Amino acid sequence: MYQKVKGTRDFYPEEFGSRWQVFSSIRNTVKKFGFSEIESPAFESFDLLSAKQGEEIRSQIFTLEKQGKEDLGLRFDLTVPFARMFTSVQMSSKKPVKWYGLSRMWRYEQPQKGRLREFYQLSVEMYGTNSIDSDFETVALAISVLKDLGLTSDDFVIRINNRKLLQGFIESLKIGSKYVDSVFRVVDSYTKSSSEDFRKELSEIGLDSKQVDYIVEFMTVKLEDLNELEMDSVMREGYTELKGLFSMLECLGMKDFVEFNPFIARGLSYYTGLVFECFDRQGKFRAILGGGRYDNLVSLFGGQSTPAIGFAIGDVTLELLLRDREKWPKPSIGPEYFVACVSDSVRMKAYEIAMKLRNKFSVDVDLSSRKLAKQLFYANSIGAKWTVIVGEDELKENKVVLRDMVLGTEHQKDLDELLD
Amino acid sequence: MYQKVKGTRDFYPEEFGSRWQVFSSIRNTVKKFGFSEIESPAFESFDLLSAKQGEEIRSQIFTLEKQGKEDLGLRFDLTVPFARMFTSVQMSSKKPVKWYGLSRMWRYEQPQKGRLREFYQLSVEMYGTNSIDSDFETVALAISVLKDLGLTSDDFVIRINNRKLLQGFIESLKIGSKYVDSVFRVVDSYTKSSSEDFRKELSEIGLDSKQVDYIVEFMTVKLEDLNELEMDSVMREGYTELKGLFSMLECLGMKDFVEFNPFIARGLSYYTGLVFECFDRQGKFRAILGGGRYDNLVSLFGGQSTPAIGFAIGDVTLELLLRDREKWPKPSIGPEYFVACVSDSVRMKAYEIAMKLRNKFSVDVDLSSRKLAKQLFYANSIGAKWTVIVGEDELKENKVVLRDMVLGTEHQKDLDELLD
Repeated sequence: MYQKVKGTRDFYPEEFGSRWQVFSSIRNTVKKFGFSEIESPAFESFDLLSAKQGEEIRSQIFTLEKQGKEDLGLRFDLTVPFARMFTSVQMSSKKPVKWYGLSRMWRYEQPQKGRLREFYQLSVEMYGTNSIDSDFETVALAISVLKDLGLTSDDFVIRINNRKLLQGFIESLKIGSKYVDSVFRVVDSYTKSSSEDFRKELSEIGLDSKQVDYIVEFMTVKLEDLNELEMDSVMREGYTELKGLFSMLECLGMKDFVEFNPFIARGLSYYTGLVFECFDRQGKFRAILGGGRYDNLVSLFGGQSTPAIGFAIGDVTLELLLRDREKWPKPSIGPEYFVACVSDSVRMKAYEIAMKLRNKFSVDVDLSSRKLAKQLFYANSIGAKWTVIVGEDELKENKVVLRDMVLGTEHQKDLDELLD
Repeated sequence: MYQKVKGTRDFYPEEFGSRWQVFSSIRNTVKKFGFSEIESPAFESFDLLSAKQGEEIRSQIFTLEKQGKEDLGLRFDLTVPFARMFTSVQMSSKKPVKWYGLSRMWRYEQPQKGRLREFYQLSVEMYGTNSIDSDFETVALAISVLKDLGLTSDDFVIRINNRKLLQGFIESLKIGSKYVDSVFRVVDSYTKSSSEDFRKELSEIGLDSKQVDYIVEFMTVKLEDLNELEMDSVMREGYTELKGLFSMLECLGMKDFVEFNPFIARGLSYYTGLVFECFDRQGKFRAILGGGRYDNLVSLFGGQSTPAIGFAIGDVTLELLLRDREKWPKPSIGPEYFVACVSDSVRMKAYEIAMKLRNKFSVDVDLSSRKLAKQLFYANSIGAKWTVIVGEDELKENKVVLRDMVLGTEHQKDLDELLD
């Protein structure tokens, strides 16, 4: 028997149905914020895919065997191909441009819990504005997507930071540029400074205990106390952006969904300002979503320098959280009607009824000339809500028998009324 | 500037919106016939992909560069992966199983009109019944999909044949088994026997003029005259299936959409009974859809022998036809409301209004602190239907100005009423 490739998933009707409901909710929310859906090809030139990280990306993605000269790979996110698409229409578009995608992408990984080789991701992208308002809209949308899926502030929290603040702080340590990346990496891998490991890792980089103390102190600061600190202009810019964002979130009733967290860094990637990640309150899973501002991305892909901001939610961790919180939808997949034939003599009439009912409803019909009992058994197994039993006797009076498949009750129904 | 890979498409909001409408119509129709949507991974093991055609398929598909031992390729249709999925649940499923997919697949080709390397395909599959009723349901669904997209019997016709009839006939020629495939191939590449080329190609295979005459005569036969012919049991089975199908199509009002055409063969692939293809009436494009019965497919993929039937519609030719017939939808992509601020002092109130309107509507809001005229210009450019103009004076009376973006008229609106 052939098997699916490891790290991929088959979606049978029920799984597909649940996912479709989740995705419909997401699409609905994102549209309400004025974003339009777009889609890009599954594969791109390797040049594009490696524009940011260089050749090292090759081992992390699926590349295609060359048949000619083309060096192609499967997309690993939507941010890169969407940036390419944006550069093509940048000049003729009114800003901001607000796009989203909800589609599949692929990464070469050894499959593990919460990480697959093929997964869906919602990617929200806004180009052409660097206002605090657009920071707010982005975070507010992320919150709304999760809220509209039935999650509350008891279930998740969005941890917010600003790269200007964090990088400005690390650089202000004057520890030498070769340490900056190392400190950044250590900070990025923690969410709290309470841990002894955090101090230990900082020491191992080569920092003395005074420097470690200083970092730990900064990492426990509250947003409202930041103002007391000495900050250079870059740090102050980051602080001002954060303050503005939190003030809007508070005014607009979203305070309970967010917290300032100076550890959030989003790795060594392309973020330039706001950064945020969403975690489940119980700390059971990986980040549910991540995003921020990347004002240099469009120019990296050959466009004119343009501010940009966005976030992404993968379907794998989202599903784990929704199932854990009992918010994963149970789809109803059966047809509304099953049309059963008492005898072959009424078969053509049964098909006529089925075709007419299909003007309004989803309808299955006996295809195998089975006995009535078997037809009812089948109708029940596929989850049909009603069965229309077509028999000669009733037809003479222009009637059929309608069976409620949940209650198991039957009553005669006028055919014209049924098809009205 | 980076370019998309040739043979692939970018879908910007309008293109995406049109396609979404077309796909929604298709999904809606297929569901009404009692089919459930499923999805399979983008890539499969090369073993599976080559199970039917063997190694020669390698040059026709996109294979992935090996990082370990896995030999993987991108799916080139949905019939193969869905058959794999079926074999896994075959024993526990009530038959018939009725599935469909509407998703992307990939073929390695030199791009040309109507053929791309990446395209969408609707694939409808029914497992577990070989009744004429199921032949009818499949053809009726194909017709309904196109009708529900706004096409009529003036626009398209479904040409129907039966492999048992055609293969039985060719074999009955007693021309030697080495000629059978050649004749089959020649027949498959024509749609009418009137052409001189048809005769010529048959002669070139090595048939004498009497044999050629005999084939040409058979290829012009009408369905109602077939009964007069001498047929072996396989041919007669094919004929009986065709007659049953056409009688149902006629009784149920679909006669105008179909015709018997003995040339339809669907290549050398896996069909065993009913075969059909849909063409535009004007003969401008490639086949719009194709399908038929393949009763040996499931066992080929390691399942228990089970009858199966289905068809597929690609989006590329379908789009060409719908555009040609002016049935390609023009989507409405702008938000229902744009919320504009007269001054920064009302900004927070504007966001509050936007967030509340989003309970029901899609809403964009000024993100760039631009002057009102520029905000209105932007609202117009994105296709907003209404603009809510939030100004200090009106807010004192709990009112806003509502601007109809189509007519350009404005009137005051009570805020509570707007948000009701």
